[in-house]
Amino acid sequence: MAKINQNYSKLPKTYLFSEIAKRSKAFADKNPGVELLKLGIGNTTLPLTATAIEGLSRGVQKLADVKTYSGYGDEQGSTSLRETIVGWYENQGIEFDASEIFISDGAKSDSANITSIFSDDCVVAITDPVYPVYHDSNILAGRKFVLMDCLEENGFIPKVPEGKVDVIFLCSPNNPTGAVATKAQLKEFVDYALVNKAVIIFDGAYSEYISDSELPKSIYEIPDAKACAIEIQSLSKMAGFTGVRLGWTVVPKDLVAEGTENGDVNGLWNRRQTTMFNGASNIVQEGGIAVLSEQGQKEAAELIAYYMENARTIKKAVSDLGLTVFGGDNAPYIWVKCPGSLTSWEFFDKLLEDCHVISTPGSGFGSKGEGYVRLSAFGQKENIEKAVKSIKNHLKI
Amino acid sequence: MAKINQNYSKLPKTYLFSEIAKRSKAFADKNPGVELLKLGIGNTTLPLTATAIEGLSRGVQKLADVKTYSGYGDEQGSTSLRETIVGWYENQGIEFDASEIFISDGAKSDSANITSIFSDDCVVAITDPVYPVYHDSNILAGRKFVLMDCLEENGFIPKVPEGKVDVIFLCSPNNPTGAVATKAQLKEFVDYALVNKAVIIFDGAYSEYISDSELPKSIYEIPDAKACAIEIQSLSKMAGFTGVRLGWTVVPKDLVAEGTENGDVNGLWNRRQTTMFNGASNIVQEGGIAVLSEQGQKEAAELIAYYMENARTIKKAVSDLGLTVFGGDNAPYIWVKCPGSLTSWEFFDKLLEDCHVISTPGSGFGSKGEGYVRLSAFGQKENIEKAVKSIKNHLKI
Repeated sequence: MAKINQNYSKLPKTYLFSEIAKRSKAFADKNPGVELLKLGIGNTTLPLTATAIEGLSRGVQKLADVKTYSGYGDEQGSTSLRETIVGWYENQGIEFDASEIFISDGAKSDSANITSIFSDDCVVAITDPVYPVYHDSNILAGRKFVLMDCLEENGFIPKVPEGKVDVIFLCSPNNPTGAVATKAQLKEFVDYALVNKAVIIFDGAYSEYISDSELPKSIYEIPDAKACAIEIQSLSKMAGFTGVRLGWTVVPKDLVAEGTENGDVNGLWNRRQTTMFNGASNIVQEGGIAVLSEQGQKEAAELIAYYMENARTIKKAVSDLGLTVFGGDNAPYIWVKCPGSLTSWEFFDKLLEDCHVISTPGSGFGSKGEGYVRLSAFGQKENIEKAVKSIKNHLKI
Repeated sequence: MAKINQNYSKLPKTYLFSEIAKRSKAFADKNPGVELLKLGIGNTTLPLTATAIEGLSRGVQKLADVKTYSGYGDEQGSTSLRETIVGWYENQGIEFDASEIFISDGAKSDSANITSIFSDDCVVAITDPVYPVYHDSNILAGRKFVLMDCLEENGFIPKVPEGKVDVIFLCSPNNPTGAVATKAQLKEFVDYALVNKAVIIFDGAYSEYISDSELPKSIYEIPDAKACAIEIQSLSKMAGFTGVRLGWTVVPKDLVAEGTENGDVNGLWNRRQTTMFNGASNIVQEGGIAVLSEQGQKEAAELIAYYMENARTIKKAVSDLGLTVFGGDNAPYIWVKCPGSLTSWEFFDKLLEDCHVISTPGSGFGSKGEGYVRLSAFGQKENIEKAVKSIKNHLKI
């Protein structure tokens, strides 16, 4: 008799975004004709750039001709895309071999699957608040957690864990707080990991939103990080590939875990992917090569500049109202402290009712997110301006 | 200190296809200028059809315009593709709701991930020989196995397990043997599963290669299968999407496991996918809608007819040599008994050395595959004919 995985019952019962959708719908039903202004979900809205479209179209056209058609590719991704990514890191002064790069269908699957190469009794450190995937995927594996608090006092960048942990998830620029770790802060984590033989899973999905040249875009800017860190990257926010699905994971050959030698962890992830994954779409990989070309990156920077202009608009407007605001400088998320003693959901409701603006309650990302809401800079300029104007004119605080 | 998942050390050490590549390369290096003729890997070679290309191109072009651009889609897949698949089943007289269909990036990931919704102490029944993914993914979860022997005596369709098992993997038409289960044979499994509250994972990736109208293409042609079976499908072999990556998994609302009620297992897979997957590429899903249209299916049938003509060519030639041959009638694989007392690898070497033909040793799929090789009908007609001619002229048995 097939029994189910009981760990599913340990997952949080309500889904943040479905609850948001539910409340938004209830409001819309009660107020027909009212336009809801979205600053909630972190989803891209700008069309792909010309170079990306060219690459994807080339990927499609190749499949129309027997001479260029390709079937199964390598599970690890095409050699040309892996080498393109090696070049992308080279431009940042970081050296890898293509065998250390694994192409994925995006950061979400890999950040959920990566810990499967480690023992189920590993203790995992995650931040609070946190991107829910790190939490939920490890709950399903039955792992124990240590929470690293992200608070106003520490600028939302946590201290290293006090006790020993085995795996540490970091996301910088951070979703949801918009905080970015400095090199010194990341160095503390690398030092901790090296001493404790812990492995850092570094999610750099928002790295291209960093404009301050002093801030690290990759964990590998920290010396010796190759011996303790896996980096997950994505073209979702870099190039609008949220629906197209492409990313990569770096597992350096130098990375070691307990009882392993150089190359072993890389080999484990290789085995995991060859066993349980069949590679990202060949069409999409062609698009990825295009996006990571010089011209593709130039165009991607324009998309990012557009969203960051939105971020500035939102941050300024909310600050001008006297609210305490974080993030939004090197990240597309603005982390707003709720006015008075409002909870996240109370402020969510207020923004919805007073201003018709949809936000994301910080408490949905963890208990230390309580008392904040996240505003997202992803959206069309005119809609962002409309939302901001509505907040300015109608928020009653 | 991060410990690794020790189950990785239980995986078979050698990889079938890398060993094949190694031996082929060694032969090629020793015999420069000799052309190797491939009947080994089951990989599509024909270009995509016009309708598929149109759909994929439409998917790309939508992303070029702000009015049609889409970011994150539903993890379960687009409603229109799910409804298209409901229609595809309807044409076979099988009814589903769209919420029972989950779009995937192909059969491999889903067949590897599906058992994660069941307890790790579930006992899994797999056939011997078997598609390695069912085996290896459950090894990584630490599960125990019962093997169901596929032998000449049972026409390579196994009997139901003697004892109680919890999860049963079936693949029909079968990879690697090319055998197809009859309705009566599948009914035995459904009856067994209903009595034992076991869950059948039915991999129908080759269903469209069935031309005999008496043979079931879907497990759901068997009454009450919805209460005990999950079906995994793929566009890889149906439409040449091996590199494009698209498939689906049906988890009926009626399906129950121990202690669950109607809808619970469907809900578990929904939760697994929303937690750990971010949906198949929106471009690829547009291609899928096109492939599953009436015109798309007509064209797909032509691709399949082409490969099945190859299968007939191979089967006839090998039979004419006096070898004992199975499969190849309603499946793109031909299962050849090794002549004399040759092992799979000995016959592989012989085909390579005598005929320059690359096959796949049956022993690579399990111990009961020993004494067989698999020949694949995927390839260009002229290459298949060249390989067949070489076997006819040069095989010394």
